[in-house]
Amino acid sequence: MNTIFLEALSGKNESGRPPLWLMRQAGRYMHEYRKLREKYSFLGMCGQPELIAEVTELPIKTFGFDAAIIFSDILLIVESFGLKLRFEENEGPILEPALQTADDVKKLHCRDLSSRFSMVVEGVKLLKGRLKVPLLGFAGAPFTVASYMIEGKSSRDLKKTKAWMLKDPESFSLLLDKIADATAEYLNMLIDAGVDGIQLFDSWAHVLAWKQFEEYSLTYLKRVMSKLKPCPVILFCRGASAFYEGLATIHPQAISLDWQCDIQAVRKRVPQSIALQGNLDPDILLGDHRLVTKEAKILLEKMRGSPSFIFNLGHGILPTTPEDNVRALVECVKEFT
Amino acid sequence: MNTIFLEALSGKNESGRPPLWLMRQAGRYMHEYRKLREKYSFLGMCGQPELIAEVTELPIKTFGFDAAIIFSDILLIVESFGLKLRFEENEGPILEPALQTADDVKKLHCRDLSSRFSMVVEGVKLLKGRLKVPLLGFAGAPFTVASYMIEGKSSRDLKKTKAWMLKDPESFSLLLDKIADATAEYLNMLIDAGVDGIQLFDSWAHVLAWKQFEEYSLTYLKRVMSKLKPCPVILFCRGASAFYEGLATIHPQAISLDWQCDIQAVRKRVPQSIALQGNLDPDILLGDHRLVTKEAKILLEKMRGSPSFIFNLGHGILPTTPEDNVRALVECVKEFT
Repeated sequence: MNTIFLEALSGKNESGRPPLWLMRQAGRYMHEYRKLREKYSFLGMCGQPELIAEVTELPIKTFGFDAAIIFSDILLIVESFGLKLRFEENEGPILEPALQTADDVKKLHCRDLSSRFSMVVEGVKLLKGRLKVPLLGFAGAPFTVASYMIEGKSSRDLKKTKAWMLKDPESFSLLLDKIADATAEYLNMLIDAGVDGIQLFDSWAHVLAWKQFEEYSLTYLKRVMSKLKPCPVILFCRGASAFYEGLATIHPQAISLDWQCDIQAVRKRVPQSIALQGNLDPDILLGDHRLVTKEAKILLEKMRGSPSFIFNLGHGILPTTPEDNVRALVECVKEFT
Repeated sequence: MNTIFLEALSGKNESGRPPLWLMRQAGRYMHEYRKLREKYSFLGMCGQPELIAEVTELPIKTFGFDAAIIFSDILLIVESFGLKLRFEENEGPILEPALQTADDVKKLHCRDLSSRFSMVVEGVKLLKGRLKVPLLGFAGAPFTVASYMIEGKSSRDLKKTKAWMLKDPESFSLLLDKIADATAEYLNMLIDAGVDGIQLFDSWAHVLAWKQFEEYSLTYLKRVMSKLKPCPVILFCRGASAFYEGLATIHPQAISLDWQCDIQAVRKRVPQSIALQGNLDPDILLGDHRLVTKEAKILLEKMRGSPSFIFNLGHGILPTTPEDNVRALVECVKEFT
């Protein structure tokens, strides 16, 4: 069993090199993933335990990452609230009906979480028998999930969400409460099934101002965390350079940094007890081997000797990334001493 | 003459309340502006000194802001490089032909700046005879202008720009050099004509990682600033919470903060000699009077007593903003003691 990832998470990695995994590592940049997608839809794959396990394991087998993350999607949970989810090519997720009124929120009830997510639990159990690396579960942060339920699709600036939040904070908070509780219940199912850690994704927190972030993101990340069974939690907020001290106040095991910030500067702002994960710019992996190796080494040198550093990207790996570049990256990190 | 804005810029505002202006204050949210736009195209308005002066003055007359900013656009400069610029409804700017090769960059020459921009210079001169508040000139930062020249239009993630930057840093830097030099030459025309300050907009710097920001944004902001005749400079980088210390190292007179960050936290990170401008979330102005006043007061209280604080938004005012909310904001700031 390769436990270097868990050691770094708890600040005790003394192996001489950081563990490595990549956000969206089981994804379209992989030839074998694309082959599977010819046969199955994305949601179809998310619904079958054997496929979940197979896809989760793909990048571990192909590249030798030090952690796996369960193959799923942060938006599956909206179906427990009665919204219908589908993915359109080139458009992303479509959620129907989008929430429109305070009354819509009042009527929301989360139903059948355990039966709806039994396939993920089964997937986790299958993987625990097979994997030689730790397995992460994940969920969307309440703010991010709420924004999709209100916008009904991807949106550049979340204008509807912010307007709702500013004009009717009460029903907005009720919505976040409901999502937070369902999220914690779902994640506890994964923890019971054996995942070794949880990552929460607040992919849209960057549209918020500082005080809004405290009120509508941080509060509900904390609410989810307070309801979880014992398990290390990693927090990822995109574009959150203004918010890292805030994230530290709710004591996650690790903060996953986006690509914008200087990880050394953040290391000084965040208590040593919190591990840092990140933060290579995903665009770097679209360059040539030389660039990938050069930039990876710069990041490795910056964090040299840190017992609590986890090498990752600052955002999900891009679908157009050449697999050879991923191989070069893994080699570079694994050979670092 | 109302000089409170200049006093705050130089850290010497002792009036008891901060000066106030809003980015894009002469824009579509104003009824009178929309009436003018029925008669003239946007670029048509940018090309006539009398209209430039009239539109620049509109929000000063209507709302009583403490500073004016010349009515123009950061992309006009690309026409001096031979690119054709037009604005499409709902699509934003289109630049043709977009740059595609290192050779395109080599062949770029900036021509006829002084004749091309004589209308702006004339506009400044007209305004200097009329305005009772200071007048700002502005330009796009070289990185942001370069990104439009490469993408040819608005883009969500600047993939072409970043790919070029990472694969051919040499020609990318040459492009930034050329834009920086033209920008400085243009701004010096405005300074000669009498503007009281300059704001540089790096609206797309947030797609960069820290080191990339240093190499491709900061270096060229500095290059522009080093070539300017004496004049206070304000730097605005959207989504730049990771970069404020970096901006401080090139000694602008002020940094204009986006809405995301906590201005008090940034105040501690940036030397007192640099004024701070910002940073109310523009979405707040879509709420009701009560919300506008409440949020404005929170910001005013945070910066109470600061001799170097300029009240502004954290991004341009939104076209859907009710004028009454702007009136409420101005009243709230002006009555603050």
